[in-house]
Amino acid sequence: MNQSIFTAIDQKAPELTALRRDFHRYPETRWTEFRTSARIAEILTRLGYEVLMGQQVCKPECRMAAPEADVLEAARNRAMAQGADPVFLESMKGGFTGVIGILRRGEGPTVALRFDIDALPLTEATGHRSDREGYRSRNEGCMHGCGHDGHIAIGLGTAWALMQVREQLHGTVKLIFQPAEEGAQGARAVVDSGHLDGVEYVLGAHMMGGPETATGQIRIQSGKTLATSKFDAVFHGTPSHAGQAPEQGNNALLAAAAAIQGLYAIPRHGTAGTQINVGTIRGGSGRNVVCSEVRLEAEVRGETDAANTYMKQYAFRILRSAAEMHGCTVDITLAGEAVSVENTPALSEQLARVWESMGLPVQRRFDELWTASEDFACMAQRVQQQGGQSCYFRVLSACTAGLHQAGFDFDESALPTGVKAFVSAALELMK
Amino acid sequence: MNQSIFTAIDQKAPELTALRRDFHRYPETRWTEFRTSARIAEILTRLGYEVLMGQQVCKPECRMAAPEADVLEAARNRAMAQGADPVFLESMKGGFTGVIGILRRGEGPTVALRFDIDALPLTEATGHRSDREGYRSRNEGCMHGCGHDGHIAIGLGTAWALMQVREQLHGTVKLIFQPAEEGAQGARAVVDSGHLDGVEYVLGAHMMGGPETATGQIRIQSGKTLATSKFDAVFHGTPSHAGQAPEQGNNALLAAAAAIQGLYAIPRHGTAGTQINVGTIRGGSGRNVVCSEVRLEAEVRGETDAANTYMKQYAFRILRSAAEMHGCTVDITLAGEAVSVENTPALSEQLARVWESMGLPVQRRFDELWTASEDFACMAQRVQQQGGQSCYFRVLSACTAGLHQAGFDFDESALPTGVKAFVSAALELMK
Amino acid sequence: MNQSIFTAIDQKAPELTALRRDFHRYPETRWTEFRTSARIAEILTRLGYEVLMGQQVCKPECRMAAPEADVLEAARNRAMAQGADPVFLESMKGGFTGVIGILRRGEGPTVALRFDIDALPLTEATGHRSDREGYRSRNEGCMHGCGHDGHIAIGLGTAWALMQVREQLHGTVKLIFQPAEEGAQGARAVVDSGHLDGVEYVLGAHMMGGPETATGQIRIQSGKTLATSKFDAVFHGTPSHAGQAPEQGNNALLAAAAAIQGLYAIPRHGTAGTQINVGTIRGGSGRNVVCSEVRLEAEVRGETDAANTYMKQYAFRILRSAAEMHGCTVDITLAGEAVSVENTPALSEQLARVWESMGLPVQRRFDELWTASEDFACMAQRVQQQGGQSCYFRVLSACTAGLHQAGFDFDESALPTGVKAFVSAALELMK
Amino acid sequence: MNQSIFTAIDQKAPELTALRRDFHRYPETRWTEFRTSARIAEILTRLGYEVLMGQQVCKPECRMAAPEADVLEAARNRAMAQGADPVFLESMKGGFTGVIGILRRGEGPTVALRFDIDALPLTEATGHRSDREGYRSRNEGCMHGCGHDGHIAIGLGTAWALMQVREQLHGTVKLIFQPAEEGAQGARAVVDSGHLDGVEYVLGAHMMGGPETATGQIRIQSGKTLATSKFDAVFHGTPSHAGQAPEQGNNALLAAAAAIQGLYAIPRHGTAGTQINVGTIRGGSGRNVVCSEVRLEAEVRGETDAANTYMKQYAFRILRSAAEMHGCTVDITLAGEAVSVENTPALSEQLARVWESMGLPVQRRFDELWTASEDFACMAQRVQQQGGQSCYFRVLSACTAGLHQAGFDFDESALPTGVKAFVSAALELMK
Repeated sequence: MNQSIFTAIDQKAPELTALRRDFHRYPETRWTEFRTSARIAEILTRLGYEVLMGQQVCKPECRMAAPEADVLEAARNRAMAQGADPVFLESMKGGFTGVIGILRRGEGPTVALRFDIDALPLTEATGHRSDREGYRSRNEGCMHGCGHDGHIAIGLGTAWALMQVREQLHGTVKLIFQPAEEGAQGARAVVDSGHLDGVEYVLGAHMMGGPETATGQIRIQSGKTLATSKFDAVFHGTPSHAGQAPEQGNNALLAAAAAIQGLYAIPRHGTAGTQINVGTIRGGSGRNVVCSEVRLEAEVRGETDAANTYMKQYAFRILRSAAEMHGCTVDITLAGEAVSVENTPALSEQLARVWESMGLPVQRRFDELWTASEDFACMAQRVQQQGGQSCYFRVLSACTAGLHQAGFDFDESALPTGVKAFVSAALELMK
Repeated sequence: MNQSIFTAIDQKAPELTALRRDFHRYPETRWTEFRTSARIAEILTRLGYEVLMGQQVCKPECRMAAPEADVLEAARNRAMAQGADPVFLESMKGGFTGVIGILRRGEGPTVALRFDIDALPLTEATGHRSDREGYRSRNEGCMHGCGHDGHIAIGLGTAWALMQVREQLHGTVKLIFQPAEEGAQGARAVVDSGHLDGVEYVLGAHMMGGPETATGQIRIQSGKTLATSKFDAVFHGTPSHAGQAPEQGNNALLAAAAAIQGLYAIPRHGTAGTQINVGTIRGGSGRNVVCSEVRLEAEVRGETDAANTYMKQYAFRILRSAAEMHGCTVDITLAGEAVSVENTPALSEQLARVWESMGLPVQRRFDELWTASEDFACMAQRVQQQGGQSCYFRVLSACTAGLHQAGFDFDESALPTGVKAFVSAALELMK
Repeated sequence: MNQSIFTAIDQKAPELTALRRDFHRYPETRWTEFRTSARIAEILTRLGYEVLMGQQVCKPECRMAAPEADVLEAARNRAMAQGADPVFLESMKGGFTGVIGILRRGEGPTVALRFDIDALPLTEATGHRSDREGYRSRNEGCMHGCGHDGHIAIGLGTAWALMQVREQLHGTVKLIFQPAEEGAQGARAVVDSGHLDGVEYVLGAHMMGGPETATGQIRIQSGKTLATSKFDAVFHGTPSHAGQAPEQGNNALLAAAAAIQGLYAIPRHGTAGTQINVGTIRGGSGRNVVCSEVRLEAEVRGETDAANTYMKQYAFRILRSAAEMHGCTVDITLAGEAVSVENTPALSEQLARVWESMGLPVQRRFDELWTASEDFACMAQRVQQQGGQSCYFRVLSACTAGLHQAGFDFDESALPTGVKAFVSAALELMK
Repeated sequence: MNQSIFTAIDQKAPELTALRRDFHRYPETRWTEFRTSARIAEILTRLGYEVLMGQQVCKPECRMAAPEADVLEAARNRAMAQGADPVFLESMKGGFTGVIGILRRGEGPTVALRFDIDALPLTEATGHRSDREGYRSRNEGCMHGCGHDGHIAIGLGTAWALMQVREQLHGTVKLIFQPAEEGAQGARAVVDSGHLDGVEYVLGAHMMGGPETATGQIRIQSGKTLATSKFDAVFHGTPSHAGQAPEQGNNALLAAAAAIQGLYAIPRHGTAGTQINVGTIRGGSGRNVVCSEVRLEAEVRGETDAANTYMKQYAFRILRSAAEMHGCTVDITLAGEAVSVENTPALSEQLARVWESMGLPVQRRFDELWTASEDFACMAQRVQQQGGQSCYFRVLSACTAGLHQAGFDFDESALPTGVKAFVSAALELMK
């Protein structure tokens, strides 16, 4: 493989950093990535990609947990104020964010490269490097604290580089800029909309590292993450005066408390790790009124799909029984779901060799599980079910804090490494 | 009314004490009052009463919560060894204890006098007067700690005295020596067997007092006690190895724990006092096995029948929902039930006047509730439903400790007072 | 007593209705009764009363649970916009609402008449009569749903009438327009600020009735209400990633759920009714984060002060143990408290006779408990402790719905009745 | 190595089967292995071993959870009746069961071979092969359902065989017939009594297999089992009458229910599997009495010692807080404990090669965890801490049911395989 594209990528490093910082300044959470998607679409269009947006990316019937209309409206207005192109905005009406860029190069395999684009509902730490260097989040209470700003920059760098080497590519490249990864909603929506059908290879990556990590390496683990189901539960009871007629109420908070204790007490699985969390609770209208509505946001996880399903089914049964116990009802809504899938070992090995041959150091940790969830697994599952192959890898970088923490930042010199990894993988698979 | 019968009763005092102590020595719990019933039947027969026993007193289909066959067998053998007449024992086969003595005196109202006869599963305190005076319980773990031994002595004294004055009586007297009052099973069984049908007056009494109480008075309260439902619940799950496959079990103990917390948390009633208790629990086969069976003994109470029903229905729903919550099932068995009924005010007033006229001091506390349950209420309810009248009163006596305590004893000089109260009441109502 | 003042009061009826509707239009919740207090102060001043406001009514150290600064600020601004006098507003800086009007008439007893003035956080029902007749609440989410608008009108009518008959009064009248009754905070603050010291008689009243109630009668019950303690609890834990390191968190929601189940399960009291409610809950920052903060608003009640104290102490122990159970801490803040006090029977009887002699029908129900809480009891307790007398009574009126319900309204022809009751009582006690 | 000893072992097969069936007939649970130990001691003595018994095997201060005196007495009497030698019985007074046989062969390493000897509290299934072939358990409610009868037979076969080849051994062999493995008590006691001090190699084995397993192979896994802590908790409260004065009680069952829900709800660990179980519960004296004592038997487990310690500490905190929550106290007693230790990889490999060279097929599964607990790990830990090596392996056999099930039986042709494995290991390590 030709080293000249690597040299060109290295020269793009300052541009990649600038791009990343632009996205960092305007973080947007799941299904409101309006400015983000508009910028991506603009760049892909300019580069010459065929661009899909809005309901082309994600069919309405395939989407879980869309935000309320007023939240969408506010986010669109903010995106407009922050420079999003109105035409692109129009195409995302209803919160159908995300962009797919397609490059068709004749016969050959279809290769999908996936980059997740959403930010977190998190307030950036004071004293963050972004303060000193001018890229602090302009959107209060929202932050790129999981490195997706870097993923977008890598994706756009890859888009540029692949155009440079397009003569060497045979087949089709799909660059999937996926919304709503946090909460495990976006990948399922893209998959169910059919975009992974017929794909032979799918690749994804995540920034990773601690303060001591040497930037510039690639780590390949098992690719296995935890399967997960996210769900909301709303208990409905009947209000009554807590002093005069508590027996005339149906206490939704008593039901919720019974449910919460029951949920955490779901018996552990004997052969696969499991997790459960009830992250938020809101309920009640007044101190002396029997509480008639409680809302929970919860999730379960499992090292295997079976263990996750065990947790989910048990959890739903507990929610319903706890409601019934106190004469209440409960509405349960699935708010996200990711499966547990392993990398195709042959592809992991093939890519490791290619990268090493190009001078990119690779850490082979093929047995290592990542005890978080990643909705890339939905894409990997669909591709493998069709006989295709998948690989999820890590772009190592010195990071200032753990993922999802208010002080998180990464060493931007990892951006060219990420671009090189994707580009050389595409060249290998489409040669 | 003639005072001479009162003088005769006073002369019987030593005999009443001796009778009471005989019953105290051989206490027997619910549905195993074999020796007790045999002794009562023997005395009533000798006095000339028409005597009903066994299934004549309590029809098989009317009885709740009979003891296991081996318990009955052991109790019969003990009664035999303690001098019970084998013929009477034979008539109580299957644990149909209790005796009814009938005296028919031509036309006139039917008056039922009720005396409860069962003892408690309690170990008599060391240092009890019974030790020094030779009437300590011979039946380890069983004790007359609720004064029913005194009630029997009063009942038999009344039987003797009524025979003395039978010429002055017009109508029919039924002396009901009722089994299984503790646990609220016996009265319901006697009522459902038809013995209160056609009864115009029903009277009952209980020993009452503290260390400072002046013996020899009568107290009439509202007669109102707490309605109650007693029930057993057995949770059934599935065992599995707690280390290797907890997810393959269905944890009956988790279900029971959820139920217990739920039961005590049933919202209080706004207008009537309620109570709940889970008194005993037994479950599980081994430390490292998921528990597959748990047994609970529980009860609810209410100041009104409606409040008791509210508690019972809520409790049963909780038991079923808690079972379902953990994939278990639950069997619920009603083990006793008493209603809440008030004395007929006119009868309370009529008796108070008669007693006062005969020199028996009366405390009129017609508004006072007793926060315990008494299955006499089932009898009172049946009689009142037929247009009859009922009165439940207290025979005051200096008592050494509270009811149901291991140190309980009463001042036996209250026994003649009790007999006088019943006899003068019968003379009044049947004059 | 002279009937002419009653005739004059009857002629004021339209004015009383107009006053009531003015207060109804601008309801204000506890400690934000800015416009309400300003209007009251204005009228009392015009009538010639000595007027106390702000920290004269309630010393800062005597106040529980003041609202946040921004809430106070918004409420002041709204009051200003709704016509409150800026001078009076200034005197209430910091949320020290409430007004006391004093009329000194030489030697004689001090008589305090108490009128509560706060509204509820409730949205008025659509279709309420206020819609059709133009007095609907202008303050969204706030409503006079407990009749305090009527109480204010009665208080101001009484102020006017007492001035008319001032020559017949001997002693001192204190008209206490008390803030923050809902939540049981205002009376305690007024009492602790010394305003009941030296008072010989204290009277209070509440609107009462159902759709069928005949307007225009007075009902005197026991005066006894439930003692109550209101409290807030905030559980503090430690957040962590729910998938990767739940064991590094301290789960405040698990602690809160354990506490809630424990609170409702506090064993009932054997001799006095009790109540408990956890009315609201808020907690958690994200679905996949171990919840590190949960806020509860709760209350306990008891038919006696002892039973209320039993509930409070048990509740606080549960909150602390539940926190400790999951490695959390909990901050508990008392947010209100009312005692349980009975009317002075002699005063009830004296007033009943006076009212009847003046042609006001009286329902004597001296044994009746009201199963709600009323912080008037704090005033009654202080006066009785000094050897004084108290009476709390009901002004009956046909009401469209229960207290605290969104459809609540009352028959305004009850307003003159209320004024007559207070005025004739003052004339009697100060004659 | 010489094959002739293997031939000799094969000829002993019928004798090994007879031995196993003798032990199977007379199963004895932890710390009551009187007949079992007496038989072992008798055989070892006859073979010429130096024999340790009673407090020589297990010092009194090193033993947890000894049975009650009456249980020990009954078990000794039964053992006597079932033919145990009275002299040996005498030496086990107080329940100090277990036997160590020592063979000293001059200079060389000390090698400990461990065989566990206790049975389970389990009733043998009807239709078990033992019925047809005459070795059914004579001790109702007790059964060798975990293969320890086979382990004893292998141990005694090994004792015989080592004596045959003693000339080839250099060093010291300790044959440890360990009591009380179920419940994780015996190994800790033996280790704390000093018997593993100075040991260079320690080996242990367990029967394993399903219905389809080919008998006659050896499987070597990681040796890693779950660390575990077993504990008993007794909640102490105060009884009171549940209807009249529940507030005067301290409800131990409410405390226990809160604890149970809390225990199962201990947050899962992010990086190591954990387990928890409350296996049994007993409490309460009567339906209408506030429960004042509840006993629980529980256990926690962890894939690592750290995870197990996390569970244990959290569990103990929950027990204490739950007691405090309801005004109760709790006594917690440690009833067993096992660590998590891996085989020494070099020894696993060394033994695998030796066995293969002798014709014993070996399954190498060096990464495989066993999700149960095994107190052999305490011995392995002590030896490794001294720089020694340990290996725990499986003797594969077609088994009719899972371990700890009433239908469990194994293919006795695995017994010679087990003996060969131990003998050839000793010859290798002491050559």
